[in-house]
Amino acid sequence: MTHLVYPGATHSRFQHTIGCMHLISAAINTLQQKGFSITDEESEAVHAAILMHDLGHAPFSHVLESTLVKKITHEEISLLFMERLNKEFNGKLSMAIEIFKNRYPKRFLHQLISGQLDMDRLDYLRRDSFYTGVSEGVVSSDRIIKMLTLHNDELVVEAKGIYSIEKFLIARRLMFWQVYLHKTALVSEKMLNKTVKRAAYIASKKGDTGAPGTLEFFLKTDKESIDFKNDPQVLNNFAMLDDNDIMSALKIWSYSEDKVLSWLSNALLNRKLLAIEIEKDKFTKNHIHQLREIAVKELSLTYSESKYFVFTDTIENNAYNIFDDKIKILFKNSRVKDISQASDILNLSVLSKTVRKNILCYPKNINEQ
Amino acid sequence: MTHLVYPGATHSRFQHTIGCMHLISAAINTLQQKGFSITDEESEAVHAAILMHDLGHAPFSHVLESTLVKKITHEEISLLFMERLNKEFNGKLSMAIEIFKNRYPKRFLHQLISGQLDMDRLDYLRRDSFYTGVSEGVVSSDRIIKMLTLHNDELVVEAKGIYSIEKFLIARRLMFWQVYLHKTALVSEKMLNKTVKRAAYIASKKGDTGAPGTLEFFLKTDKESIDFKNDPQVLNNFAMLDDNDIMSALKIWSYSEDKVLSWLSNALLNRKLLAIEIEKDKFTKNHIHQLREIAVKELSLTYSESKYFVFTDTIENNAYNIFDDKIKILFKNSRVKDISQASDILNLSVLSKTVRKNILCYPKNINEQ
Amino acid sequence: MTHLVYPGATHSRFQHTIGCMHLISAAINTLQQKGFSITDEESEAVHAAILMHDLGHAPFSHVLESTLVKKITHEEISLLFMERLNKEFNGKLSMAIEIFKNRYPKRFLHQLISGQLDMDRLDYLRRDSFYTGVSEGVVSSDRIIKMLTLHNDELVVEAKGIYSIEKFLIARRLMFWQVYLHKTALVSEKMLNKTVKRAAYIASKKGDTGAPGTLEFFLKTDKESIDFKNDPQVLNNFAMLDDNDIMSALKIWSYSEDKVLSWLSNALLNRKLLAIEIEKDKFTKNHIHQLREIAVKELSLTYSESKYFVFTDTIENNAYNIFDDKIKILFKNSRVKDISQASDILNLSVLSKTVRKNILCYPKNINEQ
Amino acid sequence: MTHLVYPGATHSRFQHTIGCMHLISAAINTLQQKGFSITDEESEAVHAAILMHDLGHAPFSHVLESTLVKKITHEEISLLFMERLNKEFNGKLSMAIEIFKNRYPKRFLHQLISGQLDMDRLDYLRRDSFYTGVSEGVVSSDRIIKMLTLHNDELVVEAKGIYSIEKFLIARRLMFWQVYLHKTALVSEKMLNKTVKRAAYIASKKGDTGAPGTLEFFLKTDKESIDFKNDPQVLNNFAMLDDNDIMSALKIWSYSEDKVLSWLSNALLNRKLLAIEIEKDKFTKNHIHQLREIAVKELSLTYSESKYFVFTDTIENNAYNIFDDKIKILFKNSRVKDISQASDILNLSVLSKTVRKNILCYPKNINEQ
Repeated sequence: MTHLVYPGATHSRFQHTIGCMHLISAAINTLQQKGFSITDEESEAVHAAILMHDLGHAPFSHVLESTLVKKITHEEISLLFMERLNKEFNGKLSMAIEIFKNRYPKRFLHQLISGQLDMDRLDYLRRDSFYTGVSEGVVSSDRIIKMLTLHNDELVVEAKGIYSIEKFLIARRLMFWQVYLHKTALVSEKMLNKTVKRAAYIASKKGDTGAPGTLEFFLKTDKESIDFKNDPQVLNNFAMLDDNDIMSALKIWSYSEDKVLSWLSNALLNRKLLAIEIEKDKFTKNHIHQLREIAVKELSLTYSESKYFVFTDTIENNAYNIFDDKIKILFKNSRVKDISQASDILNLSVLSKTVRKNILCYPKNINEQ
Repeated sequence: MTHLVYPGATHSRFQHTIGCMHLISAAINTLQQKGFSITDEESEAVHAAILMHDLGHAPFSHVLESTLVKKITHEEISLLFMERLNKEFNGKLSMAIEIFKNRYPKRFLHQLISGQLDMDRLDYLRRDSFYTGVSEGVVSSDRIIKMLTLHNDELVVEAKGIYSIEKFLIARRLMFWQVYLHKTALVSEKMLNKTVKRAAYIASKKGDTGAPGTLEFFLKTDKESIDFKNDPQVLNNFAMLDDNDIMSALKIWSYSEDKVLSWLSNALLNRKLLAIEIEKDKFTKNHIHQLREIAVKELSLTYSESKYFVFTDTIENNAYNIFDDKIKILFKNSRVKDISQASDILNLSVLSKTVRKNILCYPKNINEQ
Repeated sequence: MTHLVYPGATHSRFQHTIGCMHLISAAINTLQQKGFSITDEESEAVHAAILMHDLGHAPFSHVLESTLVKKITHEEISLLFMERLNKEFNGKLSMAIEIFKNRYPKRFLHQLISGQLDMDRLDYLRRDSFYTGVSEGVVSSDRIIKMLTLHNDELVVEAKGIYSIEKFLIARRLMFWQVYLHKTALVSEKMLNKTVKRAAYIASKKGDTGAPGTLEFFLKTDKESIDFKNDPQVLNNFAMLDDNDIMSALKIWSYSEDKVLSWLSNALLNRKLLAIEIEKDKFTKNHIHQLREIAVKELSLTYSESKYFVFTDTIENNAYNIFDDKIKILFKNSRVKDISQASDILNLSVLSKTVRKNILCYPKNINEQ
Repeated sequence: MTHLVYPGATHSRFQHTIGCMHLISAAINTLQQKGFSITDEESEAVHAAILMHDLGHAPFSHVLESTLVKKITHEEISLLFMERLNKEFNGKLSMAIEIFKNRYPKRFLHQLISGQLDMDRLDYLRRDSFYTGVSEGVVSSDRIIKMLTLHNDELVVEAKGIYSIEKFLIARRLMFWQVYLHKTALVSEKMLNKTVKRAAYIASKKGDTGAPGTLEFFLKTDKESIDFKNDPQVLNNFAMLDDNDIMSALKIWSYSEDKVLSWLSNALLNRKLLAIEIEKDKFTKNHIHQLREIAVKELSLTYSESKYFVFTDTIENNAYNIFDDKIKILFKNSRVKDISQASDILNLSVLSKTVRKNILCYPKNINEQ
C-alpha cells in the first residue's frame, strides 16, 4: 500500500525478479573473474533459483501472508511451485532447488539468493528507493557486488568495501523507517488485513462474499486444513491469485450487507484511513476498551465488531533483522572479521537489537471525545 | 498492455495526472512572469480542469473505449463527472468546466489542457519514455514550457524554441512506432478487445460470465441504450470500474465453458499471443478466409467463432495526428509562423499525413500450413 | 570557451578519448555478436587508433588551429605523433595507423573512428550535452551502436534504427546552434584567436611576449616555414603545449606594453566581450569602415590596429556537414538506402546544405553612436 | 590532483560557488516558509557572503596553501578581497562581511556559510561525488535543507531528519577515505607541494625559474615577510594566480637545470609518481635514512636533495573533523539534542576522534633493494 504515500511506487514483483537475476549475473561474473570456479550448470541453476524464489508470495505479500493461508510460509509455497515446475521440466531444476534449500555443497550460491547481502535485498532496496523517490536509500549494488569474494566457500566482502557496507546498513535502516514502516502505509496494510479477515469470517459463516472465484476459495476454506501438499488444486488456485483480485473484491465488498466489511472496503477505496499511533510502551487495556466503546456508539457496532476498527499490533524491525548470519569482511592478511568488529563507527549491537513498537488504530476523531 | 514489452511500464494514470498538474503550474508561472495576467481563480480552475480531464477513461482506456460503452466519448464522460462533482462542490468547478469546454474567453487556458502542445502530451511522452526506458523519446518539457508565450491570447512558442519543437515532434513519432504501436502490445490489445467483446456476447445471450459486478453491468447492458445522462447509476458503475476488474475477470473467464472466451483469456494470461502482420496494403479476403478455415479445423471452432482468432484491423497514427490545430512560432518582429513554415528541416506535410496500416492477426503456426 | 555560457562544460579531451574507446568496445562487441569476424589484433588496433586520433589538436583546438601552425591539419599532426609512438613501440601500432589512414582492407574499422556515425561524434554529442546541461542534445549512443551492422564491409544501420538516426541528426543540429555556435562562445573564441594573432605579430616584430617557452616558440616562428617533419623539436614543443599555457599567457599579456594585446587579454580575463551580430547577408564595407573609425577614436588606436576590435568572419555548419559520406540504412531484403531516401520525414537536402552566416564583432556601445 | 584517479573530476571552484549560492537560496526559502524572519537585505548579504567565501584560496587550494604564502589563512585572504570589493561597491557588502565574520546578530546566517551543516559542505560532497562517480557519497542536500529550522537563533535539524544526518556523516567518511585521501591523489599532491617548494628554493637562491610572472613573485618573495595588508600589489598578484600557472610552470621547470626540480616536474607531467605507504605507526628514522641513501645513489643526489624524494608526512581527518560545533536535533517537545546523543546507531565518539596516519613516499622500486 506504499503507493498511497509514494505514488510512483507502482513497480511489480516481476520487475524485481528480473532485477535480481541481473544482479546474480553480475555477482557470478565477479566471482569467476576473481578465479573461483562456477560451472555453467551452476550458474544456470542459481539464475533459475532466484527467478523462482518469490513465487510463493500471496497477494500484497506480507500483508496477507498468514491471513489467506496458515501454517505454511511463502518460502515453502515457493518450493512447492519449484517442485511442480521441476516435474514439468523433467528434473532440469533439481540443482536450482538444492541451492534454494541450501543443500548444495558450494554454500555461497545459496547465500547469493538468501543471506545478509543477497541479491534480493540489493535489488529491492535500490528499486524501492528509486520508485519512491527516497533517494537516500540508494545502495551502490554495483560496487558491493564488485567487492564480493569467497573465503572458505563463503561469501565475504573485501576490506576496501567496508564503507559501502556501512552505507548499505544505514540506507536499509532509513528505508525501513521512512518507507516500509511509514504510518500511512502501515495503517492501510493493517486495514486491508482486517478487511480480508472479515471477508473470511463472512465466507465461513454465511457463504459467498462475491469475490472472484479463486479468492473466494481461500476465504471459505478452513485455514487450518488447507493442504497444499495433498491437493494439487490448492496450488493451482493459489497460482491464479494476485493483487487484482483483492482490489476487485474491495469494490464488490463495498456494497456488502455486512456493515463491517462494507465500511472497511469503502474506507480503503476512498482513502478514509483510520488514525494510527505508534509508541514504545504498550497501550493500556483500559484505553483500548474506552475507544471500542466509543466506536460501538459512533458506528452502531456490536462490541465484538469494534475490534475491526479499534485494534493494537506490534511492529518490529527484526523482519529486517540483520543478524541471521554475519556480514564478513576479508582483510589482506586473509583474516576475516565480522562487520560489527570491522567497523569502528557503527554501533551494530544497537542496529541488531530488535526494536519492537506498539501501534494503535481507531476511527479518526473519536479519540478526542 | 505495453508492460508485456517494457516491464517497467507499470505507471498509473494517477501519476500522469499529478504530473500534468505540475506542468500546468510551471506553464502558468512562466506566462505570469512574462507579464500576462492570469488571476488566482483562473489558475486554480485550470489546475482543477487538468486534474479531471481524464476521469472518463474506461479501463485500459483506448483499448476498450468503444467496447464497454458506445456512442459516448471519454471526453463526454469526463464532463459528466465534472458536472456531478461541481454539484457536490456547490459550483466551485464552473470555471474549470468552462475552460475544459473551451468556452472561457482566455482561450490559451484551454490550449494548456488540450491542444498541440498541451501539458497532457508533454507529460505522457516524457513519462512513457522514462518508464519504458526508451530514452530517445525524452522531451524537454522544462524548456518547451519556458519558451511558451501568448500572441493574441493564443499559446505560441518563442522562435528560439524552434529546435525543441522539432525534437518534440521527432520524439513523438519515435514513441509512436517504438512504443504505442509496438507489435506485441498491439496484438495483446486487440486480443483483449476481442475477449471483452466475446464476454459481452455471452453476457447478452446466456447471462452471467462471472465477472465482477460493475463490469458485468456493462457487459450485459445493450450498448446502444446505455444512458449516462438519465440514469445516474450508470456513471456510478462506470466510476467503480478499473483495470483490476478486467484482469480479475480474465482469470475467471479462463475457466469459462465458452471455448472462445476461455481460449482468449488463457492466451492473454499466459502470454500465448496471436501472430500479427502489419502491411501497407489490405490483406485479401481470400487469404483471410483460408486462415479462418484452418483455424476452424485446428481449434475446432464454428466458422463464425473463427473471427475472434483471425481478424484484420487498421491502425493509423492520426490518433496522434498533429494537425488539429497548429503549433505557432513567434518571431522577434511579432510575426507568427506555422511550425511547418518556420522549420526548414522537417517535412511536416509528411508528418501530418495520416499513415494507415493494415494488421492481420491469427493463431501462431497456422499460416505455414 | 563554451564554459563562459555553460559553466559545467569543463570536461577534458582526455575524458572524451576514454569515452570514444568505450564506445569502440561496444561497437566491436555488437558486430562480433552479429557474426562478423574481427580479430583480437584488429580490435586492439582500432582501440589504439581512436585513443590517438585527436593527439594533433592545438590548445583550444579549432579556435587556434590555423593560428599557431599553418599548412598542416590536426589529423596530419596526429599521424606524426602516431608514427613517432610506433617507433617507440617497435611497430606495434602499424595496423592502428593503417586503419587511421583508411588503408586497411576492412574499411568499416576506419568508419568507426572517422565517418558519419563514428564513435567520436557519438561521444562528443552526448558528452557535451551532458556537461552543458542541454539535455535535448542527448543522443542514444547505446541504441545506435546496437543497430550497427555491416553490408559489403561497410558500416550500415538496421532499418529499425531509422528513428534513432533521425533523432541523432536533429540533436546534432540543435547542439550546433545552441552550443557550438552560441553567440557568447563564438565571440570569445574569435577574440582569443585575435589575441594570439596579435601576440604572434608582436613576437615576430619585437621579440618576447613573456609567454611560456613552448608557446613563445610557435608565436615567434614563421608559420610558413614550420617544419614538423624535418625538425623533431617542433613536434616535441607542440606536445608540451596545452590550454594552461594560453590561459597563463593571457594574464602575462594583460600587462603588455602593446595596447592591443593588453586590451584583448584583459577583456577575455574579465569577460568584457565584444558585441557580436550574426546575419545572413554580408556586412557592408562602409558599415565596417565606420565602426573602425569610431574604434580608432574611442580606443586611441591606429587604423590598422582597429582590425583586432572590429572584424567580420563567416561561420558555416559545414564544419558539421553531414554529407562527407552517407549514412546507409539496411532493410530486411538486404537493400541499402541512403538515410535521405529512407526517412520520409527529414528534409535532408536542407540539412545537408551548407548554411553560411556572417558575423560582425566590435566594441560594445560604439554602434549606437 | 584527484582527476588523476577520477578523470571526470575536472569541475571548477566557480561551479561550486554557484552551487553554494543555489543551496543558500533554498535554505533561506525553507526558513522563511517556516515563519522565521529574514529580510531581503539579509538574504542578499548571505548570498554575497557565500559567493565570496572561497576567494582566498591559492591555486590547488590546500595543496599549496602554506607553500606560496605563510602566516595567513585562506579565510583571511578571502576577507581582504571582500573588504577591497566593499570599497569598490561603496559599502554595499558590509552586512555580508559581518555575517562572514560571525559578528551579525542572527548567528544562523553565519552557520549557513560556515558550520557543521553549511551549504559549502552540502555542495562539495554532492558535487565531488557526482563528478568522481563515487555515487555512494551522494548526500540528499534537498532533504537536509528541508529539515533545517531554527532554535534560539541557531540552525538545528528537525527530528525526522535524523536518518538523513546519519547518512550525511557516513557519506562524508566514505568520501574522505575513498576520494579526498585516495593514495594516488595524495602522493601527487605531496609531490606538487615538494616541487613548488623546490622552485621557491631555487627562486630565492638563484633567481628566475621561468614561471609566469605572478607565480614567480610569490616564489621569490620571502614568505615570512609577505604583507597582504600593507602592500596592495600582493593581493593583486594573488588574484592573478590560478592552477593554469602551476601547470604551465611545471612544463617550463621540466627543462630546468636543477635536477630535483626537473625530475619532479617531469614525474608529475608524465604520471611517474613516487611510491606511497600509509601506516598507523611512525616510520622509523633508520628506515627513512636507508631509503634516502639508496635514492642518493640511484638518482645521483646530494643527501640534502634526497628529502624531496624520500619523505614522510602525517594526514589526519580532523581537517574534516566534525566537532567544531555540534549538529543539533530538534525534537517535537522543543528539546534539542546533540546528534551524538540523538543517534543510537552511530558511534560518534569514534567518528569525532582524530585519525592520524603516517605516510612515507619514495621513488618506486628502490624499497626492494
